[in-house]
This record gives sequence, C-alpha cells and structure tokens, in this order.
Amino acid sequence: MSGNPRVDASRVHADAVVVDGLQINNWSREVLEELRTGGVTGVNATAAVWEGTDQTLRTVAEWYQFARRHEDLMVLAETADDIRKAKEEGRVAVVLGFQNTSPFADDYRLVEVFARLGVRVAQLTYNIQNAVGGSCYEPHDSGLTRFGRNVVAEMNRAGMLIDLSHVGNRTSLDAVETSQLPVAITHSNPTWFVDNPRNKPDEVLRAVAASGGVVGCCLYPLVLGGASTGLEEFCAMVRRLVDEIGPDHVALGSDCTRNWGDDYVEWLRSGHWRPREDTPATWPQWPQWFRGPEDFPQVTDGLVSAGLDEQTVRSVLGENWLRLFDDVFASGRPA
Amino acid sequence: MSGNPRVDASRVHADAVVVDGLQINNWSREVLEELRTGGVTGVNATAAVWEGTDQTLRTVAEWYQFARRHEDLMVLAETADDIRKAKEEGRVAVVLGFQNTSPFADDYRLVEVFARLGVRVAQLTYNIQNAVGGSCYEPHDSGLTRFGRNVVAEMNRAGMLIDLSHVGNRTSLDAVETSQLPVAITHSNPTWFVDNPRNKPDEVLRAVAASGGVVGCCLYPLVLGGASTGLEEFCAMVRRLVDEIGPDHVALGSDCTRNWGDDYVEWLRSGHWRPREDTPATWPQWPQWFRGPEDFPQVTDGLVSAGLDEQTVRSVLGENWLRLFDDVFASGRPA
Repeated sequence: MSGNPRVDASRVHADAVVVDGLQINNWSREVLEELRTGGVTGVNATAAVWEGTDQTLRTVAEWYQFARRHEDLMVLAETADDIRKAKEEGRVAVVLGFQNTSPFADDYRLVEVFARLGVRVAQLTYNIQNAVGGSCYEPHDSGLTRFGRNVVAEMNRAGMLIDLSHVGNRTSLDAVETSQLPVAITHSNPTWFVDNPRNKPDEVLRAVAASGGVVGCCLYPLVLGGASTGLEEFCAMVRRLVDEIGPDHVALGSDCTRNWGDDYVEWLRSGHWRPREDTPATWPQWPQWFRGPEDFPQVTDGLVSAGLDEQTVRSVLGENWLRLFDDVFASGRPA
Repeated sequence: MSGNPRVDASRVHADAVVVDGLQINNWSREVLEELRTGGVTGVNATAAVWEGTDQTLRTVAEWYQFARRHEDLMVLAETADDIRKAKEEGRVAVVLGFQNTSPFADDYRLVEVFARLGVRVAQLTYNIQNAVGGSCYEPHDSGLTRFGRNVVAEMNRAGMLIDLSHVGNRTSLDAVETSQLPVAITHSNPTWFVDNPRNKPDEVLRAVAASGGVVGCCLYPLVLGGASTGLEEFCAMVRRLVDEIGPDHVALGSDCTRNWGDDYVEWLRSGHWRPREDTPATWPQWPQWFRGPEDFPQVTDGLVSAGLDEQTVRSVLGENWLRLFDDVFASGRPA
C-alpha cells in the first residue's frame, strides 16, 4: 500500500483550487454544474479548433453572452487571480483558449486582438501542418515557421500561453527555444506511458519543464491507452512524471468532451481539410473512473493513494497551472 | 463688433480640453504633431467606413501598433478621463470610431467584441442603405430596421456612442427614440446653414439635443458651403445653433482628411457599392482659415469674436463631447 494515510483526499480536493488544463465541451448550464459538483474551479475551454478569424469572433461573442446568462455559476477569467477569486465565490472560472492558431490567419497582430478579447491560451497547431508549424500527426514537421516565430514572440508580448499538445516534436522544441516565457502541454501524456503521436517523448517533456512550463496529464482515452486503463495506472504515471520532471511541472488536462454528438468528433478529426471518413468517427469510451468533470474527486483520491505528498497533490490539481498563468498572462496585458 | 473683448481666445484655447468629433486622416506622426500644434487633445478617429469584420480587426490591430510606436505623442482613449489625462500629459487621445456598422456584419454581438477592443463610436450607416438603416442619401429611408434596433440596444449596453452624421432623417429619429442613451451627430451642420443631404433639419437637431446628445459642427467644404465660406459665417452658425438647441449640445467635428491622395475620396464615395466614377472624385478645397488641425486656434478666435461667452466656448471646444463620452462610454464597460 503506497498511499499516504495521513492525507485526507476529500479535504485536499475541497480546499484546493482545482484547474483543468483543457476541456472541449459543448458548454451548457448542466456542464457548468458538473464542473462545480466535481470541485473544478478553473478550466481552459476550447473556443476554436479549425475556425478562422470571423467565426472565432462570433464564438467569443457567444461566450460573453453565455457567461452573463450563467453568472451565478461562472466567470470568464483573464488572470490566475480571477480563478482564485472564483474559488472563493464558488464559481467556475473559464479561461478562453484556442486549440489552433487559425483565428490569427496570416496576421500575427491578431494575437493581441484576441488577447484583448480575453483569449489566454493558444495551441500552435491542431492536427495538421499550418502556417505556424507542424502538427504531431505530420510525417514531415516543418518546425516553427518564420511566421510562427512572430506568432510566438507576439504571444509572449500579449501574455498568451503557448500550448504544444497537438504540436509536432520539432515545432515544439523550436517553440520552447523561441519563447521568452514558459510554455505548456495542456493535455498529453508521456510516450513511455502510451506510445501515440499525441503523447510526448522525454525530450519534449523535459524541455517544457525546463522552460518553467507545465504538462497536463490527459484522460482522453486515445492518449490514456483506452477505457480499460485503471486509475492506479494513470496516477502511477503522474507520480513517475513528477519524479522525472519535478512536482512543479505536472498537472491535469482532462480533455473532457461533454455534451457532444458523434458529428463533433468527426469535425475534430476531419474539419474541412479532408473529406469526411466513409465510416465517420465516434467518441471513444471513457474509463469507468472518469466519466466527466464530476469524477475529479476520484482522481484526487488516486493521486493520494499513489503516494504523492499533499503539497504535490495540490500542485498537480491546480497550483502549477495558477503559477504558470501568473507568469504568462501578466506579461503583456494592456495597461 | 460682437466679440467679447474680456475673453482672451488664446488663453481659452490653451486651457481647454479641445475635442474634435471626427477626423478621418491617413494617420502618421506628422498628423499627430499637427493635432498637438493645433492644441487638439481628443479626436474620434475613423477606423472603418466600408470595411467588414475581418479587415476592421486588422485596422484595429494596426492602431494598437501605431499607438505604441508614437506613445510619446498619443494614447488610445477608452474613457473621457483618458482624454482629460492626455491633456495633462500633452498627448493626443484617439478614440476609435466607425463611420459604419459594416464591421458588425449581421451579428449584433460583434458590437460588444469591438467595444472590448476599444471602439467607442459607430455611425449607424455610411452613405448607403445597410442592414441597420437608411443613409442620408437614400431616396427611401427604411428607418431603423429590426436588426438596427438590436444594434442600438447593444451599443447602449456596450457603451458605444451612436453617431447619426451620415444617417437618414427617418432612421435618425428612430434611433433617438430607440436609444436609452444620448446620441451624437459628430460632423454635420444645420440644413438652414447649407441645404445638403449631409446636413440636418431642425427636427433631427432638436431630437439629438433633447436626448442629451451633441451636434459637432463640421468644417468639411461640402457641408460648409465651400471654401469661400468665412470663419465669421461658420461661427455665427455655431452661435445661432447654441441659441436654438442650447450651449450643452453644440460642439465641433472637423471631418479633417489629412494626408490622403485623391484615390481615397473616390473610395469614400464609391466603396465597392458602385463602379468607380468615370471622372474620379477629387478632394474639395478647404477654406483658408482651416487647412487642418493646426488651425484650430483660429476657430477658437472666431467663436470668441462671434460673442460666445467663455464657458460656452469651452463647452463647444470640448466639454460637451467629454460629458457625452462620460454618459455613454461608462454605460456598459466590462467590469
């Protein structure tokens, strides 16, 4: 028994500011309530995957309305302190993020425009090569492009966190080297845990940690090894990663996909970059121990049982994201 | 001699916070220096005439860069207090504004998006009928449309000033009635001064004043009666308008067009709504006494000579705009 009997997991979970590095739900009042029930305060919510500038603006406008409509339950957060305050108020703090740089089109100046609109995180590529760099699925990763270097510099200036989750390894290493600020992998696991293009080799994980950044361990079945992977296996992975890259650099990024039909997963896979598949994609089955945000307390149980000390559990649950948000978001905020 | 010999025009001009209700310059460092030389602190600068959402975002992004590049000379203002502060600092305070609702496309929610980006004024129509209402040149003014009513309500909520300068009379009266906040005519004159579709009949002027709004008397040759109109005639018009609608509702909106070639005036006239004219438009000649922003002190001389008391001169030069900006901009600012 490797658990730490002196740590009361339910108390730790209730006290901690729990932050999820990425969710891509079809947001509704019910989903917000699931987060609250699960004790999740902060969440990086995906506001663009394939969309361009115009459509993304409309999504952002929709978020403003959604946030007002449900202001008893949520707030749009632009700083780590907004998340800390939401914890005190018992509200969910949504950080708007992109899983692509498509909203910036070919204009690095649009980074600042979206930053001013409240967007605080952007993944450099989604699942295909783009103008900024190569994706994790690309057979020939271009590396960070000339335009990509300007986007990274502008993200640093504007205080927007660089996310490398779906990004190719060469582009990721280039981004770490180019960025003046720490970067994140919001939702991936080590390839030594599950060998999948969406997971990350040691070299990338260590580079992100060395930047002062954070790796969000991910519960999405594809990168978890399927629904049969146990909570103990997942938490043992977290513990090993803590040992390898340090307790200040490991966190969670569930990749929750609540409330969508199968059409949406086909859209995520194929966008408009290829014809729809003959057999359209369907959502994978999630593990029994993590059906959605309501199950977050079980993850805390698992982390305690895996023998992590209380401070490390708190760091993994949220403090590491908060520190990184403090370091990055404050950087270039307009006065 | 109707002038007030006790009022020292140059002292008043130096002390006053001078605000110009509209300029549509091709902005450069030189133009900023002209404003500073002319003692102009605040200016509503046009950031869109025909442009749609995407192009306007890029224009806004360009303004952010321009403002940083020339931060010794200017600041982007989002409140009246930003303008008052700029006066103390000896800088020009630029308020971003649109001369059209084209950036909002068919989505009233984009009002809030642009408000968050710093845009504080929007004219409901430019020179043609649009989705919001009829222009002053339209033979059949639709009145404020169903979509237009939502745009007006959203502009009220977001704290964006409604400008009726190029707007048709029926649409203008509808807008005054619909708006919960005072509205502006940033750059037009009374039709009793020059009978031109761009100028305004008594009914519209009085409705704007009754809303608590402001009329910016305009120096653009087309609405001034040409370059031969004298400073005394212009200032006598201002004085009569003060008598008719009250000293709290009259101001200036020069419609300065510095630094453009003739191509730009053809763009303003024809946009892409009609083929270019066979004989392309050229810029009109400005009066000797107002070649550009550097000549603002002469306007103050003229207002004093026309017999306006010192407080009214200050109100016309800027205080009325500042009061209106206080009333409107503060309304819906995001917390």
